[in-house]
Amino acid sequence: MSFTTLAAFETALRDLPMPDEAAMASACVRQASLTKPSGSLGRLEEIAIFLAGWQGRERPRLEKARAVIFAGNHGVAAQGVSAFPANVTAQMVANFAAGGAAINALSAVAGLDLHIVPLDLDRPTGDFTQVPAMSEEECLAALSAGAAMVEPGLDLFVPGEMGIGNTSAAAALCARALGGCAVDWTGPGTGLSAAGITRKIEVIDAALTRHAGAPATPFETLRHLGGREIAAMAGAILQARRLNIPVMLDGFVCCAAIAPLAAAVPSLTDHCLAGHCSAEPGHERLLARLGLTPLLRLDMRLGEGSGAAVAVQIVHAALAAHDRMATFAQAGVSSDA
Amino acid sequence: MSFTTLAAFETALRDLPMPDEAAMASACVRQASLTKPSGSLGRLEEIAIFLAGWQGRERPRLEKARAVIFAGNHGVAAQGVSAFPANVTAQMVANFAAGGAAINALSAVAGLDLHIVPLDLDRPTGDFTQVPAMSEEECLAALSAGAAMVEPGLDLFVPGEMGIGNTSAAAALCARALGGCAVDWTGPGTGLSAAGITRKIEVIDAALTRHAGAPATPFETLRHLGGREIAAMAGAILQARRLNIPVMLDGFVCCAAIAPLAAAVPSLTDHCLAGHCSAEPGHERLLARLGLTPLLRLDMRLGEGSGAAVAVQIVHAALAAHDRMATFAQAGVSSDA
Repeated sequence: MSFTTLAAFETALRDLPMPDEAAMASACVRQASLTKPSGSLGRLEEIAIFLAGWQGRERPRLEKARAVIFAGNHGVAAQGVSAFPANVTAQMVANFAAGGAAINALSAVAGLDLHIVPLDLDRPTGDFTQVPAMSEEECLAALSAGAAMVEPGLDLFVPGEMGIGNTSAAAALCARALGGCAVDWTGPGTGLSAAGITRKIEVIDAALTRHAGAPATPFETLRHLGGREIAAMAGAILQARRLNIPVMLDGFVCCAAIAPLAAAVPSLTDHCLAGHCSAEPGHERLLARLGLTPLLRLDMRLGEGSGAAVAVQIVHAALAAHDRMATFAQAGVSSDA
Repeated sequence: MSFTTLAAFETALRDLPMPDEAAMASACVRQASLTKPSGSLGRLEEIAIFLAGWQGRERPRLEKARAVIFAGNHGVAAQGVSAFPANVTAQMVANFAAGGAAINALSAVAGLDLHIVPLDLDRPTGDFTQVPAMSEEECLAALSAGAAMVEPGLDLFVPGEMGIGNTSAAAALCARALGGCAVDWTGPGTGLSAAGITRKIEVIDAALTRHAGAPATPFETLRHLGGREIAAMAGAILQARRLNIPVMLDGFVCCAAIAPLAAAVPSLTDHCLAGHCSAEPGHERLLARLGLTPLLRLDMRLGEGSGAAVAVQIVHAALAAHDRMATFAQAGVSSDA
């Protein structure tokens, strides 16, 4: 079930399973029977029905929910596109392992089982202003490393990332897959100055020009302009779809990872909830292009799966109401007139 | 510490304590030291600093968080302003006691200690199209019943309500306290048809006309146009302020309960977070008038404290990150360039 060949990846993209319509219908009937005005729990009702469809059960559960943070280093970081030096990627991986990062605290609160997957941190991707970020073998290895972290029986999967320089890769992927120039998709990332953003836009436009002749396929876009942690998220999200496991998406980089796939196959995101809308300005536009309405808008812009982890708490609320509420008949409450 | 006299209520309104600035400053310093780009947790950072101020500690906690659902019946319900019959108030109180309502499930997920306070359900308030909803004694008793549910040492207080007909009282309170006509503040409540909303607007405008000559004080507005559960929420929120206990506000009716107080004393809501923006259309306008930005927009419109309970989960996330994250120095992570 991994992506050791390009053919395996492309076959997976063409053959996407759909949700269980009968389970969704049963969940709808249950929602209408619960002691509340019809529709009054809003998106909590939608979430319960969505998870019923992907989990294939009237009362979905959230017992085995996994977050995986993929980390990678980017050759383009040498161009000065981040407010932080590239060695922070490895330092933060150590911080994740020691339990000191935001995602550690937020995963614990959300009941997420957290895994950290560093991907060849001592071997950054190629500087995509000069060369493709990855060889075919490297890109397939990253896609497979992502897929390997998703296994049957998970109730929800949360992909996250860490990689100094990766909002530059994300902006390049969006421009290449969805159109527009670098300026349409570039923001401050971890906190660049206005001058830094101007420089970042120049770097990304140079990369887009450099690879304008590359084949416009999901794989080649990921390979030329992505990064290992980005390809790993794409592989994990696609593998989750093959296993009918719902996904909670995080911020700009996470969503950009699937932009090349979704541009080719719009139904790719059907098993995905958008956890939040990041303060990184390209994310709002990207969510709109993916047809996703974020659950949260809390001005977060950290990555690490942090926004998605907070949004998983909303799923807990949705499923608790769906599972534990009494029906009108059970409670002896009159329904509406 | 209750409101057995009008003078006690008015004194409390004039003498509002403020947050602990030193604790907020310490919490700000701590946030800046944690292993994340400065400001990248957005509103989670603001929430931690806000709670630090009201709890008076650099690292606020959420161990003793209480939700109280006040229930009352409304004489105006006889005018056909709700999609549900008035006996549903008592039926839902039984459902709360049995653990079958949405707020039971949502409180459990949010770690809230849930209390239910029915207020003279067999004795509806006066029909405010004809008479004041409450006598002075009744209104003071309701304010005091609310205050009695807030005790020193709580880390957070969540007021909620149940009362068939109470969105009519809420709309009348908003129009009276903040200006406008019934049409500006009236919506479908639990699910009225368009014709039902037209009727509801007529009823509310009749009440506003009937009491146009009443003294324009917070107390007299609550007394003429409110209800017992509404006055109880106002009393509880004011009592929380006297005890420096932060409050998570719920939906339209909860916020309308303090509209008369906040119109007279705008700093009244300084200790309040807005949990969510309800699908009830008047709520968006009301939050703007109160100067509050909601944490969540999930199209909920149930009352019961349900939206606030979901928002309490966001507070858990905020405090977990604030308390448990490593600092740059502890983790050996380079800060920004």
